[in-house]
Amino acid sequence: MNEETLFPDVRIVLVETTHPGNIGASARAMKNMGLSRLVLVSPHDFPNDTARFRAVSAADIVDNATVVDSLDAAIEGCHLVIGTSARDRRIPWPLLDPKGCGEKVIAERTDRSEIAILFGRESRGLKNEELQKCHFHVNIPTAKAYSSLNLAMAVQVVCYEILQASLAGMAPQAWDIEYATAEAVEHLFQHLEQTLIDVDFHDPENPRQLMTRLRRMFNRIRMDEMEVNMLRGFLTAVNKKT
Amino acid sequence: MNEETLFPDVRIVLVETTHPGNIGASARAMKNMGLSRLVLVSPHDFPNDTARFRAVSAADIVDNATVVDSLDAAIEGCHLVIGTSARDRRIPWPLLDPKGCGEKVIAERTDRSEIAILFGRESRGLKNEELQKCHFHVNIPTAKAYSSLNLAMAVQVVCYEILQASLAGMAPQAWDIEYATAEAVEHLFQHLEQTLIDVDFHDPENPRQLMTRLRRMFNRIRMDEMEVNMLRGFLTAVNKKT
Repeated sequence: MNEETLFPDVRIVLVETTHPGNIGASARAMKNMGLSRLVLVSPHDFPNDTARFRAVSAADIVDNATVVDSLDAAIEGCHLVIGTSARDRRIPWPLLDPKGCGEKVIAERTDRSEIAILFGRESRGLKNEELQKCHFHVNIPTAKAYSSLNLAMAVQVVCYEILQASLAGMAPQAWDIEYATAEAVEHLFQHLEQTLIDVDFHDPENPRQLMTRLRRMFNRIRMDEMEVNMLRGFLTAVNKKT
Repeated sequence: MNEETLFPDVRIVLVETTHPGNIGASARAMKNMGLSRLVLVSPHDFPNDTARFRAVSAADIVDNATVVDSLDAAIEGCHLVIGTSARDRRIPWPLLDPKGCGEKVIAERTDRSEIAILFGRESRGLKNEELQKCHFHVNIPTAKAYSSLNLAMAVQVVCYEILQASLAGMAPQAWDIEYATAEAVEHLFQHLEQTLIDVDFHDPENPRQLMTRLRRMFNRIRMDEMEVNMLRGFLTAVNKKT
């Protein structure tokens, strides 16, 4: 497994894709999310320069795509098959949303896993007999007014959720400066209040809620040391001028 | 609000888009997820038939797009501005993942909310000064081997997470004062910078990172209207004394 292939056991299967641009855009979406294995079932126009062009830096995935002439060949050896489905079906099937699909894929991975996710034709998706080969269906929720996603967009959303599920539990965001201590912030508030008095903006005899609101405002964030120092420096500069 | 527009208060802002196909594909991704307001900042080639073609049934969003010549015009009236960012920045900024971005957008919606999500150029994203106008950055996690998402794919992922969060029934947050608009905050920053110069705390010839760090701090706060007015009043009082 090289660095480019986070998910060597997950194949994206595109069934009877009409537009080669969608194959290329799907390859790019896959590579962005760490997937690399593309299987094409009876594509209408492939190989094709448009597919390589739209893939940009994922042309290697297009070049290495496996082309087969049946869905059975595409999912050979797989123990988990998930099919994308836009429409309501007559017979309900175990259904995942994209996030659940990502979590399912990650949960089922082993050192010998083989997982396939199927995407149907641009015009009418997967046929019923193809959907019946799946353990789960995955449906991407949409607005009612326009429910038909572009094929490569659907690949993007599903692959995104696979990477998200694998990244779950990552470390929290780093910050570049230490957070200020409570006493440093308190000294800042005292310095601010005195300066507000000095410039005749604040009257302690008639405080309204000025300091309360300023405290609430600055306490909404956890100020870091440099921010407190900058504000103290500004107040000191004001003090010297007044 | 008609059925097609689940999020009339959320604008998608594309900055200096090069390829009209990406505008069309973004419009389709938006409409699939219930968004409708597209703002284009200085697009290179627009209007353009390719944009309408790629939008398919979302050509109405392309036709109704607002074209402006500055980012400030694009985010006018907005109280929450989120910018997509692919790169690590020298100064960390409050960062969301796409799911957190969707939840933030839904949590901040009110009957008068105005929210903008910014997407940068295909080649190099948003500039630092554009990112500094944002309250939050959102980063779409990718595989290391290929981190550059197609622009419309990024729009798809972010809009998908907005619809997902809305379907999850996120509750809006209560606050007693209206949030300040982007232009009110921008005027505050300009007033603050001039005052910092006047009191000899800030040298525009040697700016260090003072204004960047102050912008980052105040944008973390998400100031409300009264807070901006208090700070403006304080600065005016300082101006009178110096």
